Amino acid sequence: MNIKKIFRGLEGVVVDNTKLSEVNGEIGQLTYMGYDIDEIVKCQFEEVCYLFLYGKLPNINEFNEFNILLKSKRFISNRIIDFIKDASSNTHPMSVLRTSISMLSSELNGLGSIKKDDLINNAIDLIAKTSTICAIICRSKLKKEIIHPNEELNHSENFLNMVFDKPKAMGNAFNTALILHIDHGFNASTFTSRVVASTLSDIVSSVTAAVGSLKGPLHGGANVSVMKMLLEIENLENVEKWLNNALAKKEKIMGFGHRVYKVIDPRAKHLKIMSHEWGKLTNNTKWFEISDLLEKLVYDKKKLYPNVDFYSASTYYSMGFPFDTYTLIFALARIVGWSSHIIEQLTNNRIIRPKAHYIGGYGKKFIPLKER
Amino acid sequence: MNIKKIFRGLEGVVVDNTKLSEVNGEIGQLTYMGYDIDEIVKCQFEEVCYLFLYGKLPNINEFNEFNILLKSKRFISNRIIDFIKDASSNTHPMSVLRTSISMLSSELNGLGSIKKDDLINNAIDLIAKTSTICAIICRSKLKKEIIHPNEELNHSENFLNMVFDKPKAMGNAFNTALILHIDHGFNASTFTSRVVASTLSDIVSSVTAAVGSLKGPLHGGANVSVMKMLLEIENLENVEKWLNNALAKKEKIMGFGHRVYKVIDPRAKHLKIMSHEWGKLTNNTKWFEISDLLEKLVYDKKKLYPNVDFYSASTYYSMGFPFDTYTLIFALARIVGWSSHIIEQLTNNRIIRPKAHYIGGYGKKFIPLKER
Repeated sequence: MNIKKIFRGLEGVVVDNTKLSEVNGEIGQLTYMGYDIDEIVKCQFEEVCYLFLYGKLPNINEFNEFNILLKSKRFISNRIIDFIKDASSNTHPMSVLRTSISMLSSELNGLGSIKKDDLINNAIDLIAKTSTICAIICRSKLKKEIIHPNEELNHSENFLNMVFDKPKAMGNAFNTALILHIDHGFNASTFTSRVVASTLSDIVSSVTAAVGSLKGPLHGGANVSVMKMLLEIENLENVEKWLNNALAKKEKIMGFGHRVYKVIDPRAKHLKIMSHEWGKLTNNTKWFEISDLLEKLVYDKKKLYPNVDFYSASTYYSMGFPFDTYTLIFALARIVGWSSHIIEQLTNNRIIRPKAHYIGGYGKKFIPLKER
Repeated sequence: MNIKKIFRGLEGVVVDNTKLSEVNGEIGQLTYMGYDIDEIVKCQFEEVCYLFLYGKLPNINEFNEFNILLKSKRFISNRIIDFIKDASSNTHPMSVLRTSISMLSSELNGLGSIKKDDLINNAIDLIAKTSTICAIICRSKLKKEIIHPNEELNHSENFLNMVFDKPKAMGNAFNTALILHIDHGFNASTFTSRVVASTLSDIVSSVTAAVGSLKGPLHGGANVSVMKMLLEIENLENVEKWLNNALAKKEKIMGFGHRVYKVIDPRAKHLKIMSHEWGKLTNNTKWFEISDLLEKLVYDKKKLYPNVDFYSASTYYSMGFPFDTYTLIFALARIVGWSSHIIEQLTNNRIIRPKAHYIGGYGKKFIPLKER
């Protein structure tokens, strides 16, 4: 085989066209289907779901219809609820989510069809049910009785209600966090979902695969690592000492830097505001202040900017989410992006099958076991 | 963004080095870690597992030790057995496999570690338990009582025993089929497993994702489609008429052609012999003969060669496997390749994150819902 250029990590390799989102790392711009992220955060989460699935923001009638449909699909079977309760005590929340979503394949209609209507229908099911699954996992982690979906509440309020019992005054902020996490180009989990879809497997297989990918500490798992770091720093006085020590040991500072962004991640700006507001609302701005100081110092010393994980950590911690469930929140938003990418991939499919450069040698001869 | 070349399907893009296998499509050669496939089929399946995990064929002591370890890991929990029994009636076998493997994450030691010893240990667990899971799914499809693993039997004999009760004289042929399906470069499911692993997620997430990818009709699901086609053809007299009709309608002939192979798939040669032997052993060479004639005619008319799926279909059918379980057999062999690729990826990791070319426009302004 000719030795061609090897694109490790596929850095810079353009795999396909997409109408869904663009990450412009040079100028720190994230665009969702024509809308800058700074515009789209004015929407409700459900409007942005509609945008990704149907290609335009809904009018009031379309919005109401979509909402009724989404709410009607929130319920999951007892088989999955029992599995979550049983598994949550000794299994990573993202592993519980992965298995629960995989179990949905016997409950979705028209699974495996590549007709756009069927796929959109499956996607709405997955968006609604993933929120329910994530809420029940959080609830089990909190060791409290599960709360059933409430049709009076919108998507983010219902999720918070299912986790925290009464919706505190945080629906709006949470709505923004969800929108910011919906899509982000061909990141590893989204790309995973497209690779799986490209074999014409079904949307449940693709989304299950994406959840497993998001779990990784180099991807969605990073927000948990950020909070571990903040807890290790412990208080404002320790920040500079901690950072100097970490830099001296050449340790990676969690929540900073991004392969694509060369300037500040535009999502981080919004999440920083949210983190601050949440701190004020709960009379505990400590984690925000530590984060804020760390941001300044890391910029001074390393010229690195915070990424999307950095301020989500302190926000989710202040909100009271169990420590290792932060990546679930990422997943319950990103499932909108995954589903839309799967539909886009299937609309003009080509199986994704790259090549490897083989360095394992040739011509070895079989020697019978007893003569080795 | 500059419009660069778009590598749809990543065709021809070299993603990384690998020591594991090479597919040379020009000359029809498949190499496993230095051994041509024609050499390696002289081994037992367990020897080839050892080769992939440890980089060399075992001597007799290493082989015996490895066998003891592999056999000791065959048992799975009642939770998974109950799930399989419950789900098998209304769920695709590959979906049952995907969920069952996902459930293993609470049962593996050291999961998430990227130390090579831990990963090899996890891999051996997954190879052993996947065989058990696949056998129980087949058994449930046959609506018969499950049979527990038998330590007297080797890997392929034990699998056949768990499916068919008494091991018929087919252990050797099946051993060959398994070896032929172990690895095949950066195919879609293997590439999926590497993308997931590259986020430093765990081996269960990676393998679960790969199962979902293999399920696709353009990938592992193809062997089921081949058998559907053979049953539609029904008998030897119909072959030519059926083919002419299909070609006139420009239908794809299942089991022929391959993106990589320009000549005959070297695995197909071995599987053809196996299919013939199996026909003779069961006094039913009909499906072999239909396949053989179809191969000749498709070559005459379209200059296409059969691929790995073509002769596995008639073989598994003659063996008595339930119709929609053929892809499970693919999976229970390919899991050796997946695990080895995950370990190789983690040995020198770089997160796999390609780019997309955005065509969704810019500058749209938010208009409040009620004004749309």
